[in-house]
Amino acid sequence: MRLPNYICDRWIESAGEGVALSNPVSGERLVSVGSDGLDLAAALAHARQVGGTALRQLSHGERAGLLARIAELLAEKRADYFDISRRNSGATEADAGFDVDGAIYTLKSYVRSGKALGDTRGWVEGARVPLSKEGNFVGQHFLVPQQGVAIFINAFNFPAWALWEKAAPALLAGMPVVVKPATPTAWLAQRMVADVVEAGILPAGALSIVCGGARDLLDHVREGDVVSFTGSADTARRVRTHPAVVEHSVRVNVEADSVNSAVLGPDAAPGSAEFDLAVREVVREMTIKSGQKCTAIRRVFVPAAHAHALADAVASKLGRITVGDPAAEGVRMGPLVSRAQQLAALEGIATLRTECELLCGGPENFAPVGATAGAGAFVPPTLLFCADGERAEVVHQVEVFGPVATVIPYADAASLVRMVRRGEGSLVASVYSSDAAFTDALVADIADLHGRLMVVDAAVGSAHTGHGNAMPTCLHGGPGRAGGGEELGGMRALGLYLRRHVVQGSPERIAALAEGCADAATLWA
Amino acid sequence: MRLPNYICDRWIESAGEGVALSNPVSGERLVSVGSDGLDLAAALAHARQVGGTALRQLSHGERAGLLARIAELLAEKRADYFDISRRNSGATEADAGFDVDGAIYTLKSYVRSGKALGDTRGWVEGARVPLSKEGNFVGQHFLVPQQGVAIFINAFNFPAWALWEKAAPALLAGMPVVVKPATPTAWLAQRMVADVVEAGILPAGALSIVCGGARDLLDHVREGDVVSFTGSADTARRVRTHPAVVEHSVRVNVEADSVNSAVLGPDAAPGSAEFDLAVREVVREMTIKSGQKCTAIRRVFVPAAHAHALADAVASKLGRITVGDPAAEGVRMGPLVSRAQQLAALEGIATLRTECELLCGGPENFAPVGATAGAGAFVPPTLLFCADGERAEVVHQVEVFGPVATVIPYADAASLVRMVRRGEGSLVASVYSSDAAFTDALVADIADLHGRLMVVDAAVGSAHTGHGNAMPTCLHGGPGRAGGGEELGGMRALGLYLRRHVVQGSPERIAALAEGCADAATLWA
Repeated sequence: MRLPNYICDRWIESAGEGVALSNPVSGERLVSVGSDGLDLAAALAHARQVGGTALRQLSHGERAGLLARIAELLAEKRADYFDISRRNSGATEADAGFDVDGAIYTLKSYVRSGKALGDTRGWVEGARVPLSKEGNFVGQHFLVPQQGVAIFINAFNFPAWALWEKAAPALLAGMPVVVKPATPTAWLAQRMVADVVEAGILPAGALSIVCGGARDLLDHVREGDVVSFTGSADTARRVRTHPAVVEHSVRVNVEADSVNSAVLGPDAAPGSAEFDLAVREVVREMTIKSGQKCTAIRRVFVPAAHAHALADAVASKLGRITVGDPAAEGVRMGPLVSRAQQLAALEGIATLRTECELLCGGPENFAPVGATAGAGAFVPPTLLFCADGERAEVVHQVEVFGPVATVIPYADAASLVRMVRRGEGSLVASVYSSDAAFTDALVADIADLHGRLMVVDAAVGSAHTGHGNAMPTCLHGGPGRAGGGEELGGMRALGLYLRRHVVQGSPERIAALAEGCADAATLWA
Repeated sequence: MRLPNYICDRWIESAGEGVALSNPVSGERLVSVGSDGLDLAAALAHARQVGGTALRQLSHGERAGLLARIAELLAEKRADYFDISRRNSGATEADAGFDVDGAIYTLKSYVRSGKALGDTRGWVEGARVPLSKEGNFVGQHFLVPQQGVAIFINAFNFPAWALWEKAAPALLAGMPVVVKPATPTAWLAQRMVADVVEAGILPAGALSIVCGGARDLLDHVREGDVVSFTGSADTARRVRTHPAVVEHSVRVNVEADSVNSAVLGPDAAPGSAEFDLAVREVVREMTIKSGQKCTAIRRVFVPAAHAHALADAVASKLGRITVGDPAAEGVRMGPLVSRAQQLAALEGIATLRTECELLCGGPENFAPVGATAGAGAFVPPTLLFCADGERAEVVHQVEVFGPVATVIPYADAASLVRMVRRGEGSLVASVYSSDAAFTDALVADIADLHGRLMVVDAAVGSAHTGHGNAMPTCLHGGPGRAGGGEELGGMRALGLYLRRHVVQGSPERIAALAEGCADAATLWA
């Protein structure tokens, strides 16, 4: 079956042979996609002119109402999505839930925030700025939706969540969306868009999807467009330096590689609640979605005295995780999404092994349950140990996108901070410690290089939302290697789609322009 | 005289011959600059490690105190700066004031805002985000200074103001500064830095200056650095696509070309107050700093019935402007800053003349007062007329950086909006009209493509702050062709130098981390 693309409010099958999407358990071909022959310039122009115009005419409350109907629809069709997720991504029930339920949960979060804005359009920001002694000339900052199109070039690991965590704030802000999901797992995103289109929820032009290669998509961007990219640093580089992106100062948001850290405090000795919480979280992060999360723990920093104990505890739990076909009884972890990803992960493990010891996992002597090892894209949970993190290089630089993490002992806080910072910018770091002086100092020393920090002690216990979970109300994104982008953070996410300006004039004109606007303080509240 | 560079807290003369700076009136060589042989990697590392660490230890109030001392010092030495400005930039007294007094005024604005923050460091943003039902796990957004260096690559037209309008918010935010002024007019920036260094105001490492070519400066940027560039679209492209900038997701702020608009409303007929206000503003914008302002009016949109009357009125006033050596009696407008700029402006005028009629000015038959036409970089005030703006191309695209503007008649509001938008993103547009329905609709239709809009009617009169004036409390920057950057806007400017993150943890830990922070709502207040 060839999946059609939806552009210019029409379903269009690509020319050419297309690319087959496969079941990563068996290699079975499922559907094919392709973008050959599509008029992508027309697709963007249609989204801008038809979709953008229609969305901007709606109030925030009305846009939130559309998101609510999308969330309802996705919830109704949840079983279909879980099925596609299992077949095309090799997802377990928990993995599919992470993606699909995560998408619905995120949409609902924006529904709530959007409905609270009621019948407003646009944003008035801050107080009037006095500009004349007589008070007859003042300035006022405003934010308005950009009159372009929001283009999402998404990663393969979250076909559902990545679409909606970006589309929800974009649509709520008043910008039309064109999504280009990663090819290997495009089916789920395509199906969701097809369902939303069939239900007739959104105005014409508000949502389009291009499956397969991005081809000349970026050649046609212009001022007022937004490109939000999630994926590899290599592709990020191509997006950022694309001539049309540069020429028109197109706003680009990037979420790329991230070598995230988990840190055990000096007090988190074996037997402590914090030690157990850390073990549980490392195992969870390594295995959920087979470690294919940009937020997953890659480096586990442990006081030198406890490093082997922590590694043993994690390895022991990993040994009890059944890996195989998610459809098979008792399977807790599935394959990676493709053979290409399997190959990349195995290469990554080999790279890490140049300076790390393999504690468990690795490609050798591994037999997935309910599947043939040779046919599927399986990688077993793989734990490594890096005895000298200060001298090591690749362990701080290489993100192995699979069920892979490395334990790194540290001697003291100064050495720990130096090593964490060598990630050169990460999405998230989590700390497990009841030593408040230690955690407060660590957060202060590494916060500038992280988008999110999670501090876990016994009092927080299992109430925490997880090292790897991007909550809709909390910032997602990190500097440097992580791409420098910002997503989510509640209403902060709308900022990417809004343009700030200041109007200078008489208080009367300012008052007229501010009428019906929402208070921009809400965006950072 | 060779001007030394100040890096690593030492004055260092460059190797090699250097580049001579000239008096644009006479061609006389004044001083020379050069950056050959400087260790720019060490310069950036020193600024980060020594300057950044020292600045972050100070409170906002203490940093504001440093800015206050700088403002005082610059005010004391104002006469020196006016002299350099006249000799190196060909500036009249008014032009020099625009740059030098503008710098002092802007610094003082940040002093006031910074002192109000008192003994705070860092920023807590918004309310706590509930993340568990029991309330024992919450999120809190924070902003912290980036632990890199702020690199300013500045334009030739504002050696003083451009330095301080960027340095004030950077230093206040807690980031050290390395400035690379444009070579032709680097003298003034170099002198100001020399004075500040000699006065011992700032901590070691907080302020450095490199004069001459940027050479390998950008090769050494890394995560946490900020590059703020003002200048041509060509150089902006090189900055944005520089491998190290891309590799490390270095935050880049760009202010580039801008074909700004002034619009007369349908009611602004000859004889109306708004007509006269527009004429005055167009003349002022064309002549102050010889039109070398990125905010200057380039396109003047006039109802077709009044276009020739407006053009005649402007041309008549321009005819009474004496152009020549700023040191000569009665001279109201000086030369451009260099022969290269003169050549570029004359080429730009020639380009505009391919689709516009020359009304006054142009290179022919022009004799500057107190100077030899052949020796100086003079361009007379040049007004053009574009009869068919809808069919024209270059008039909407080419920013002629000199005393040059084009009058463009419009038939109706729809055509006007189409033409203004063909600037593809501008810093500023001003509207002269007492027709509130007209101005409100126009602002709504073009606001997304502008950083600033000024609405002038008779009630505002001459109380307005000017089409071309970037007030410290109002946003400066525009989308698309204008570069997409944001500067000033009061405390908003600090955002470029701060990094947002969220901390998730117990309410106790969040409270401890929030202690002593300023409220980030202040940034957008």
